[in-house]
Amino acid sequence: MDVRELVDRTLHGDPRAIARAISLVENASPALREIMSGLAPHTGRARIIGLTGAPGVGKSTSTSALVARLRGRGTSVAVLAVDPSSPFTGGALLGDRVRMQEHAGDNGVFIRSMASRGHLGGLSWATPHALRVLDAAGFEVILVETVGVGQAEVDIARHADTTVVLSAPGMGDSVQAAKAGVLEIADVFVVNKADREGAHATVRELRQMIAHVDRPAGAWKPPIVSTVAAKGEGVAELLGRLDEHAAHLRSSGGLEVRRTARAREEIEAITVRALRERLGDVHGHSALDKLADAVARGHTDPYSAAEAVVAALTEAG
Amino acid sequence: MDVRELVDRTLHGDPRAIARAISLVENASPALREIMSGLAPHTGRARIIGLTGAPGVGKSTSTSALVARLRGRGTSVAVLAVDPSSPFTGGALLGDRVRMQEHAGDNGVFIRSMASRGHLGGLSWATPHALRVLDAAGFEVILVETVGVGQAEVDIARHADTTVVLSAPGMGDSVQAAKAGVLEIADVFVVNKADREGAHATVRELRQMIAHVDRPAGAWKPPIVSTVAAKGEGVAELLGRLDEHAAHLRSSGGLEVRRTARAREEIEAITVRALRERLGDVHGHSALDKLADAVARGHTDPYSAAEAVVAALTEAG
Repeated sequence: MDVRELVDRTLHGDPRAIARAISLVENASPALREIMSGLAPHTGRARIIGLTGAPGVGKSTSTSALVARLRGRGTSVAVLAVDPSSPFTGGALLGDRVRMQEHAGDNGVFIRSMASRGHLGGLSWATPHALRVLDAAGFEVILVETVGVGQAEVDIARHADTTVVLSAPGMGDSVQAAKAGVLEIADVFVVNKADREGAHATVRELRQMIAHVDRPAGAWKPPIVSTVAAKGEGVAELLGRLDEHAAHLRSSGGLEVRRTARAREEIEAITVRALRERLGDVHGHSALDKLADAVARGHTDPYSAAEAVVAALTEAG
Repeated sequence: MDVRELVDRTLHGDPRAIARAISLVENASPALREIMSGLAPHTGRARIIGLTGAPGVGKSTSTSALVARLRGRGTSVAVLAVDPSSPFTGGALLGDRVRMQEHAGDNGVFIRSMASRGHLGGLSWATPHALRVLDAAGFEVILVETVGVGQAEVDIARHADTTVVLSAPGMGDSVQAAKAGVLEIADVFVVNKADREGAHATVRELRQMIAHVDRPAGAWKPPIVSTVAAKGEGVAELLGRLDEHAAHLRSSGGLEVRRTARAREEIEAITVRALRERLGDVHGHSALDKLADAVARGHTDPYSAAEAVVAALTEAG
């Protein structure tokens, strides 16, 4: 399959081509440039919904329940499970994708895990690429699922139109003050496993914390939905809230703002990557490494080094 | 005070000049280029120790106790309290600096809070600049304190030679699996308020979690120190562990690796900033915004946009 055929088949929703394109993203293939160029005119239509939360709150079960309900109304859905592997150790995989297999025979569903260990720019670089592939492939809704670990949790809000933050009773950490950043990125809160003891307290605690976030007048107030995703309870209400948020984004102009901000970050990430690659040389150490060494030793300052980088970039261009 | 005088006085440790230089960092002053150039030959000597942890674990008290002990052995110390204000709302200030005032009359101590709301690049850009100022001013140890909220917590490890992660009994969230990223950045763990109930359980839990982190042979194994910082208990041991880690960094070559990586990020941050500024125009919307809009609408792809960015950068150069 050459690039042109890959683009063509992806645009027609061929699952093998889509999977292949996402593998090229994972491998940071040089072919991505041409692929993204071919896909671009067909992007901008999918609704992107991010789901995050601490391990054990039921993200996969909730994602699966949402997929079932979206399929019930005839909406095509792609699921991108992003593995925020630690850059420091091997990291753990996102885990149990088995629960998703109930949708395996359905052509209106595409499910894919993605890791990006070792990439320059990591998931902040790879995720938007994979979303472009799924968007161009014609999926009406893309669910991006990521485990709530550090930066990955906040990053998902950068990639999604709507961000869902899940918690569950008895997992106090997900609604702690320490997680203040999460309070501000959530468009919809879900308290899953709402049939467990402590669910009311969790909802109450969340409500209090949400009330303390300053929001401008007319801003969206994130609702809290109680669900028992394993039994499908509350999922219809969740979908209703997601639809309301989508309508709010369209009417307020927020959708355009979010998407343009996203595109700006994509462009910057690719520019920085291009810059790093151009500075690379064949002797194992890049020019940037040499400059960094000089700065670390106090032989030069970071501004002079940055100017040298820009100059090298200009010459290489 | 002109730039040359500011640099000169900073190098002589004049507190007013240092404070002024850090204000220029906060305000992203164009004078920074010249200031950093003047300071560069005098950098690379300070030991930078980062302290992080959830709100309420006693970071300020621990910092203050460490300052007292370092002063006791004649070491000059600067404290940089970094406020990871949320980019989404106004955010909360780091809070109680009052406890630090016991050191206020001591010339061997410099204490400064820093916020960087609204800056391009935020604290990841401003923190290394402020550290350079304090390093060049001759402080032997710089303590960087940041509250453990999302990304800021992990970012501190990028700026420090040694990272201390604090927790306290009864604050389960600080040692949850959800915080896996923090486990991997810590060089030294502190369980503060160790006279409280549950302290042994917290240490045990931490020890188990540390054991699950894969580390290469010969790598530093982060110790756990129990402290009651408010009473000064365990602080001597903490300082001992910090010294051991510093010795390990020197003997293993890890110090050079960390410092070069840090310089590389500094250079890249300044380059990206320069790039953004060069792309700006006087009509309120930058060229980058226009490109981002075109990408968001599917009129072009992010690679072509990035090429336009590089081309514009080249012309502007």
